[in-house]
Amino acid sequence: MNESILQPLPITAERFAPFGEVIESSNARKLSMNDARFDRFDDLARTDIDGPISISIVRSRTATSLPYRVDMLERHPLGSQVFVPLTRFEFVVVVAPPAESVEADEIRAFSVPAGRGINYHRGTWHMPLIALGEAQEFLVIDRAGDEQNCEEFFLENPLMLQGPVAHE
Amino acid sequence: MNESILQPLPITAERFAPFGEVIESSNARKLSMNDARFDRFDDLARTDIDGPISISIVRSRTATSLPYRVDMLERHPLGSQVFVPLTRFEFVVVVAPPAESVEADEIRAFSVPAGRGINYHRGTWHMPLIALGEAQEFLVIDRAGDEQNCEEFFLENPLMLQGPVAHE
Repeated sequence: MNESILQPLPITAERFAPFGEVIESSNARKLSMNDARFDRFDDLARTDIDGPISISIVRSRTATSLPYRVDMLERHPLGSQVFVPLTRFEFVVVVAPPAESVEADEIRAFSVPAGRGINYHRGTWHMPLIALGEAQEFLVIDRAGDEQNCEEFFLENPLMLQGPVAHE
Repeated sequence: MNESILQPLPITAERFAPFGEVIESSNARKLSMNDARFDRFDDLARTDIDGPISISIVRSRTATSLPYRVDMLERHPLGSQVFVPLTRFEFVVVVAPPAESVEADEIRAFSVPAGRGINYHRGTWHMPLIALGEAQEFLVIDRAGDEQNCEEFFLENPLMLQGPVAHE
């Protein structure tokens, strides 16, 4: 089978806006806090979750090497989902806009450099999380509980996700 | 003025239970996720927040050195509050149980080793965040918006918060 190439672009707030937010300390919207002992990069993303919200940690057992074959995207109808690295490492995401199904020409890949996290809007299609290294930890904020909250979409034509290029 | 000494104890889930949760990857409640590529340390804490929930980053401008004089604790009636370090560093918290006022003999200090974060229950009294190093970043999950959500309690007898002892 001749799979199409999917090349990650360096993530930016603008590029990622149809899918969610980039969580990063930038000089935008910086507030002073606690007698000026801290800068606060406030309100970078909001939860949009029906039901209880839990804080979890996920840790990669293995590194996933690129190129990597992407044949399925998933979405969570009950809420948004945050992933923030707990140490400094790069990761890669694959997304498609919230819609009933995935349109092949709307799939995008982004490389997320060390020091940034992401929030998927409710219903954003995304590749299940992969890590480029072993024992990498992410903080996760999503809906708690065992209710059905995951839909899968299998791609007719799988994509070969390439390694990230150097960041701009 | 002769201030009393406040010595931080190494944090544990049990010791911190009256005040909130410790957010850490431990072997308790470990689930497999994404075709076993990840371990998930699930549901370590839950938000308990009235109103919109925002994700923010705070970054220390300066290191606070210990001993440090604690003369005020604050609480947030509208919701719980999470602080998770975004790189590996230790920090120190001072807390008192949720109640109308702070009882001096119920104040506790905890050292939180690298790799862990904390969730303050709604109404838990706590010292405003300090960092032991410069440019240390925490992810914060708390109530969005400008409504009045902070009450302060000034201690009749300030406390001198000591440096952490070696962890158990």
